[in-house]
Amino acid sequence: MARTTAPQVEKIIIGIDPGTNVMGYGVLKVLGNKAEMLAMGVIVLRKYESHYLRLGKIFERVTSLIESYKPDEMAIEAPFFGKNVQSMLKLGRAQGVAITAAIMRDIPIAEYEPRKIKMAITGNGAAAKEQVAGMLQKMLKISKEDMDVQMDATDALGAAYCHFIQMGKPEVEHKFSSWKDFAQKNADKIHK
Amino acid sequence: MARTTAPQVEKIIIGIDPGTNVMGYGVLKVLGNKAEMLAMGVIVLRKYESHYLRLGKIFERVTSLIESYKPDEMAIEAPFFGKNVQSMLKLGRAQGVAITAAIMRDIPIAEYEPRKIKMAITGNGAAAKEQVAGMLQKMLKISKEDMDVQMDATDALGAAYCHFIQMGKPEVEHKFSSWKDFAQKNADKIHK
Repeated sequence: MARTTAPQVEKIIIGIDPGTNVMGYGVLKVLGNKAEMLAMGVIVLRKYESHYLRLGKIFERVTSLIESYKPDEMAIEAPFFGKNVQSMLKLGRAQGVAITAAIMRDIPIAEYEPRKIKMAITGNGAAAKEQVAGMLQKMLKISKEDMDVQMDATDALGAAYCHFIQMGKPEVEHKFSSWKDFAQKNADKIHK
Repeated sequence: MARTTAPQVEKIIIGIDPGTNVMGYGVLKVLGNKAEMLAMGVIVLRKYESHYLRLGKIFERVTSLIESYKPDEMAIEAPFFGKNVQSMLKLGRAQGVAITAAIMRDIPIAEYEPRKIKMAITGNGAAAKEQVAGMLQKMLKISKEDMDVQMDATDALGAAYCHFIQMGKPEVEHKFSSWKDFAQKNADKIHK
């Protein structure tokens, strides 16, 4: 029997857009330089009145997504800058919960700023959500109907796709191993 | 055999001061109107370079403290306001992780601002850490040596003690069931 060539490495990337009202997710299967959308959706949290209950739900759902799809890596849409300290604290809590779910399963995490995700996908860091969704729909061959229904999952799927694009590049921008690292590379942006 | 009176309800409160450099904790056993310190200490996180590893350690250690002491309630020292969005995001992540560890065990959470904790313990919302530590040492009959060694755990133990003091009061200030609730009660303080 003829020996076939070694199979290309398959990798699963989960993208997460953490929020305390709606949390988006998108799962990509990557084979070589091809990516396929396995799942995308949102977890609606605003129906839970308690902030704590929302955080608990994020942990449960992200953990359950990890168990279902067994991702090799997690990409998070993570704004680093905001005007409102209150919203940053809330966002930080939601991010912390999603990150913990990944850490508990030893899944490496990469964070991407919204601007970077838009840039990687559309070539324009200020692109509208519709443009990003349109590009993802074409590149991942998602039906327009599915994409329209899952519009709120665009940022999460975009984070996963951005990570897929960055994977082949030698140096991944905005992937920081620590806050110190982040601070050093962004000294000009940090409000002291 | 004579029947004894019904035993007083015993309650365990764990106080947490989440941070990404050092995380403090303090555990109180409450019997009626008496409180006793069961444990206090810090988890030094600055030795871990990775921000993610730190978050993972917080989750592991808070979970392990919960398993060891089986607290009925958790009190968190939680500054709601800060000037720096960066530090609020980091703090939010650490808080989110500690909160998740409690939620996963169905432990109710109360949050107290540093100012409130100082006020409850010393009568002065701007008291120095040493004053708070001194009061806690006296009230909980902790040896001066132990208190000096565990100085970094003061805020966490203070949060637990503050919760103990508040427990008897009909309306607990700064215990919010949701962010909406918090926002409504603090409309004047929130930067829009």
